[in-house]
Amino acid sequence: MATRSGKKNAFYAQSGGVTAVINASACGVIETARKHKDKIGKVYAGRNGIIGALEEDLIDTSREPARNIAALRHTPSGAFGSCRYKMKSLEANKREYERLIEVFEAHNIGYFFYNGGGDSADTCLKVSQLSKKMGYPIQAIHVPKTVDNDLPITDNCPGFGSVAKYIAVSTPEASFDVASMCKTSTKIFVLEVMGRHAGWIAAAGAMAATEDCDLPIIVLFPEVNFSQTKFLKAVKEKVKKYGYCSIVVSEGVHDRSGKFLADQGLKDAFGHAQLGGVAPVIANMIRDKLGYKYHWAVADYLQRAARHIASKSDVEQAYALGKAAVELALKGKNSVMPTVKRTSNKPYRWTIGEANLSRVANVEKMMPMSFISKDGFGITKRCRDYLEPLIAGEDYPPYGKDGMPKYVQLKNVPVTKKLGDFKIK
Amino acid sequence: MATRSGKKNAFYAQSGGVTAVINASACGVIETARKHKDKIGKVYAGRNGIIGALEEDLIDTSREPARNIAALRHTPSGAFGSCRYKMKSLEANKREYERLIEVFEAHNIGYFFYNGGGDSADTCLKVSQLSKKMGYPIQAIHVPKTVDNDLPITDNCPGFGSVAKYIAVSTPEASFDVASMCKTSTKIFVLEVMGRHAGWIAAAGAMAATEDCDLPIIVLFPEVNFSQTKFLKAVKEKVKKYGYCSIVVSEGVHDRSGKFLADQGLKDAFGHAQLGGVAPVIANMIRDKLGYKYHWAVADYLQRAARHIASKSDVEQAYALGKAAVELALKGKNSVMPTVKRTSNKPYRWTIGEANLSRVANVEKMMPMSFISKDGFGITKRCRDYLEPLIAGEDYPPYGKDGMPKYVQLKNVPVTKKLGDFKIK
Repeated sequence: MATRSGKKNAFYAQSGGVTAVINASACGVIETARKHKDKIGKVYAGRNGIIGALEEDLIDTSREPARNIAALRHTPSGAFGSCRYKMKSLEANKREYERLIEVFEAHNIGYFFYNGGGDSADTCLKVSQLSKKMGYPIQAIHVPKTVDNDLPITDNCPGFGSVAKYIAVSTPEASFDVASMCKTSTKIFVLEVMGRHAGWIAAAGAMAATEDCDLPIIVLFPEVNFSQTKFLKAVKEKVKKYGYCSIVVSEGVHDRSGKFLADQGLKDAFGHAQLGGVAPVIANMIRDKLGYKYHWAVADYLQRAARHIASKSDVEQAYALGKAAVELALKGKNSVMPTVKRTSNKPYRWTIGEANLSRVANVEKMMPMSFISKDGFGITKRCRDYLEPLIAGEDYPPYGKDGMPKYVQLKNVPVTKKLGDFKIK
Repeated sequence: MATRSGKKNAFYAQSGGVTAVINASACGVIETARKHKDKIGKVYAGRNGIIGALEEDLIDTSREPARNIAALRHTPSGAFGSCRYKMKSLEANKREYERLIEVFEAHNIGYFFYNGGGDSADTCLKVSQLSKKMGYPIQAIHVPKTVDNDLPITDNCPGFGSVAKYIAVSTPEASFDVASMCKTSTKIFVLEVMGRHAGWIAAAGAMAATEDCDLPIIVLFPEVNFSQTKFLKAVKEKVKKYGYCSIVVSEGVHDRSGKFLADQGLKDAFGHAQLGGVAPVIANMIRDKLGYKYHWAVADYLQRAARHIASKSDVEQAYALGKAAVELALKGKNSVMPTVKRTSNKPYRWTIGEANLSRVANVEKMMPMSFISKDGFGITKRCRDYLEPLIAGEDYPPYGKDGMPKYVQLKNVPVTKKLGDFKIK
């Protein structure tokens, strides 16, 4: 297949659930590419992830002034739009890969940067094989991102540190609130956090309970089968000792049979099935069995969007990995992902490593059981030592005189289409 | 009734739901009292509000080092414990007032500072009448506090600015998240906020939608009777135009008949009544009628405890009102509350005013209808001009190397009891 000579353009896209710092990675990619204009032409962003490539819906980031690109570093969510779309194998859907090549060729794209989690690593791996399998020369580099912190090889994933900081800070704040009121009012506070398979985020809720800060916090992990008897006993003990108790519960908590606690078959007055969270289930359980007054919160998107309380390590690593992805491309690499390598805990030191995508795609890193305390309701010192540097440091966005953070909304100027329409099946 | 001669001690207590800045008021009271040791002896705090006075459960704040008192300025919630306890009238419960006088006398208390909302102003008013009605010389000063922002006369209430800032910042953060994902995934985000009677907090959710930042945000106020038809039409229009929509809903939203939307008669699989929030009700309604994928969050205590994103104006005013309360006492005042008087909008300027408690107690200030846009789903420029200075400025707590805010837990050393037990009915 013929390709144009000279320097190639780059394609960058965001994939899967967004985070408080995925735009910091975008910033790292674009700013670094702009420093190497001799080798990389324009950076075209996919509107709504890989879908933007398939539909030839490209954004010309070169039309964006430098100050807007710089502002991505402190702007949460995905500035170019993201998607949940996992490409099938080359054999199963050759049509889509051929389309990708058409689009890449039409826009002289030789670099493919994909910013996402496990599924995205898989898509990136498939694109990286286009050179060999379909003869189109492309270098595909994956930029890690996921609040779930479940990518292998890398010590941690950008996005996780900031959601962990949000939960680590919000849990004691709400706990202090309950502590103030528990004599005559609420004794229980339940906070539902993200984590369908792994309890990384929930674990952060236990960070506040230290020797210096005595707080009764119970964490419910998806890694530990839920036992109502054991749980209620633990709650009762905390309330007896402290007068109150905070509970941080992963959305994915389930019983021994694998049944999600959130799935309680709720019906409204008309008999329609209603979807509730796991927090009200826990709260109602405590009300029914122990009779304590409670409050509950579901953080949902607030936790992963909370750029206002992002961790400094997280922002720095998100940027550094975006930058490293471009540098790997410039070194001629293909089918790799830059990683965070922890070289020391105290003081915290890290460098950038490199992983082959074949070792990353479709591998889920679970929380080690050595991170969960024996009773199953808290974290160990090992877990604390791991988490602490990831939530360390503050990296506040700039605020206007109106008291609002100055988040940027990009112009997202489209690239003129050169091909016909394409329908995603 | 005989009273001891010489300088009197002060009693300070926190009442009702706590806030991110009520401790800043405590800090203002205690630091100012410490500067006037010639006139004010010790400051005794009531453990758990007025209950601490009735049960003679007093905390000796003089045992707390200055750095701990200073740290109250940046520590959320009520450091001495709060309560929900409204004292009945003197006629209906003379026994409690006699007990108060016994405790005040036993501990040489001549100043009563009560930090709370409308109900607390009422209690403070009753205490202020003890001199006249029961011959015990006491000066009672109310320090305003409430996230509900519903106290009269004062331009605004400490606690509100910070919860408003939290909602004002969190709403665009989550909206950016939904915007990124809406092409292939979630199109609706529902955020439930506090406000049973007044929509002040919900109004803050609309702050992000400006000329510079185009966001589709619908606010549901308790002041506006909920119409499902009108609401769904508005949501549909926003999704059509923007691809997504964020909804900020007050917990107190109700229909024309006064029925709370949150009250949907939810039952679990066993037929037990389950309490849910209004957010899932809105979300389920949109799913059933419009079919959009949604997410919802319930901020609950997170919003009023979020000291990490407190408004600077709010912290300053909370402190200033605590300080002013002591200064009013030193001027010989009784039965008053220091207020915030807004003297200019742009630039924002305010001074401390003074209100008689008889004009404050049991008066609820609603949001003016001129603050709500014609369609009932947003705010007017007047509302924006009012809110903006209240959320302006950041006042971050100090953080440790571990990435956690340095909130203080006081020693709360009890004062030796001099009286027998007292049972609150």
